[in-house]
Amino acid sequence: MSLFQGLSAFPITPADASGRLDTAALARLLKNIEEARADSIGLLGSTGAYAFLTRQERRRAVETAMDTVGGKIPVIVGVGAIRTSDAVDLARDAKAAGADGLLLAPVSYTPLVDDEVFEHFATVADAGQLPLCIYNNPGTTRFTFSLDLISRLSKVVNIEAVKMPLPSGGDFTSELASLRSATGSAFRIGYSGDWGGAPALLAGSDAWYSVVAGLLPSQALALTRAAQAGDAAAVERLDAAFGPLWALFKEFGSFRVMYVVASLLNLCDVDPPRPVLPLKDQARQRVAAALDHLDAVFSAGCMQAR
Amino acid sequence: MSLFQGLSAFPITPADASGRLDTAALARLLKNIEEARADSIGLLGSTGAYAFLTRQERRRAVETAMDTVGGKIPVIVGVGAIRTSDAVDLARDAKAAGADGLLLAPVSYTPLVDDEVFEHFATVADAGQLPLCIYNNPGTTRFTFSLDLISRLSKVVNIEAVKMPLPSGGDFTSELASLRSATGSAFRIGYSGDWGGAPALLAGSDAWYSVVAGLLPSQALALTRAAQAGDAAAVERLDAAFGPLWALFKEFGSFRVMYVVASLLNLCDVDPPRPVLPLKDQARQRVAAALDHLDAVFSAGCMQAR
Repeated sequence: MSLFQGLSAFPITPADASGRLDTAALARLLKNIEEARADSIGLLGSTGAYAFLTRQERRRAVETAMDTVGGKIPVIVGVGAIRTSDAVDLARDAKAAGADGLLLAPVSYTPLVDDEVFEHFATVADAGQLPLCIYNNPGTTRFTFSLDLISRLSKVVNIEAVKMPLPSGGDFTSELASLRSATGSAFRIGYSGDWGGAPALLAGSDAWYSVVAGLLPSQALALTRAAQAGDAAAVERLDAAFGPLWALFKEFGSFRVMYVVASLLNLCDVDPPRPVLPLKDQARQRVAAALDHLDAVFSAGCMQAR
Repeated sequence: MSLFQGLSAFPITPADASGRLDTAALARLLKNIEEARADSIGLLGSTGAYAFLTRQERRRAVETAMDTVGGKIPVIVGVGAIRTSDAVDLARDAKAAGADGLLLAPVSYTPLVDDEVFEHFATVADAGQLPLCIYNNPGTTRFTFSLDLISRLSKVVNIEAVKMPLPSGGDFTSELASLRSATGSAFRIGYSGDWGGAPALLAGSDAWYSVVAGLLPSQALALTRAAQAGDAAAVERLDAAFGPLWALFKEFGSFRVMYVVASLLNLCDVDPPRPVLPLKDQARQRVAAALDHLDAVFSAGCMQAR
């Protein structure tokens, strides 16, 4: 199986108020994902707060991951940075620490044009010497990849996959057909935006880059396997179990919600990096209720419980 | 006069490919602005590539500024950062180095909500202990300040001004009226987006936060003084002199254009930070022609030449 297939679980990166990593807590989250047998870990993704962390702390996160789960589950590392030279350093750090793959978003301050993004990706892909996934995430980077740019990038050595946002109209089938014809047959296409992950797999995507799987890997894996098996009825039932959580993701952003989930699951109790504020009591109670709902469905349905 | 009134000139920050400052070149640009008698310098603004530079290089830039022009012209320093704790450090560094004021944009990765931006600004304003201008720049930060949020922020100690983007409909008069009534009489309202700077002053704004003044301060000052005097005919004539340059700003982004201007004026010859690419030959020739046009109008009209 390719590195960029199946369920990729994106945990938060526990850190203190000054951005110093809590390696023990991170190790706990990674172990949890590995034991649930997800297909890969997406370390230092958007959910992993990579944009808030220094090069040093990001290196420590990769080292912690390789020490904890290296060789047992592939680890894909986010290496996005505003400056190309910084992203190059991060890619080399990840490679040196033993990472299996890279994830690169076109983080920017000055809005970028296509040729700039192309050169940026080609430079980092060459420096990293690891399989690289294009991180197409306009919600945070505000850069929109054209089909043409994805096609050009898919021909660059080491660039092997794309992580797509959910299509605005929800039509995975036609988007996948366009992407497949614009890229080679070995190029992998996955989706993020958790409420679309399973529908995208059902429609033939290769991977679900999942926020929820970072903390609830067993439940996300059950949904993934149902979708990969083409079992639409099971997908519908399991997706409904996640329904209240998806609603909270849409309302507050999954980043804020996952810190509450981590605390409620007793996995770690840290705040998101400021300026992002912790959710308030009323929202926290709704997160608790959403987890109860998920638990109830999974308990009733002889699926793996959390 | 308030710190946040008149012409504030925003130079580029010359640096090498790894992001190491060229302090001699920066000093040259700052001296040029001071000698032209602009009203303030906007150091490390968007044009000053603050988002691409480390804390150490940003501190060196402020120290260079204070050593070169400190006490002769007020220096306002951009202290934006994704993490609140980093922005706090930058604000304290600027204060320690002797800066006169701060400029703060709500730089973000995870899109922020109003309360998060409010807390971020209040924290940095308190840490910096200098007059602070809200940097409202949705083109780079993608955060849009509501009138209500600006009103709330205007009541925070040390927050004394806002730098606005051009109103989409071009109606400065009604926007200024709304902003004035939402803020106190001591609160200063200025605009960026160079082609709207003079029209905004004519309509009663307090300041023009000007990219072009970073390298062509005399010409920008002539336009500023005409607008401040309410001389609409002079504004129209001088604004037309800048016309070809404004067109290039709109087409390529002023950030990319100013590196070419700096080279053509023999002020410094550096590239923008990658991934931003230098403009190509054809565009560079158009920048040269735009400068010739500006020169011709200013030479003909007994205004200060460059």
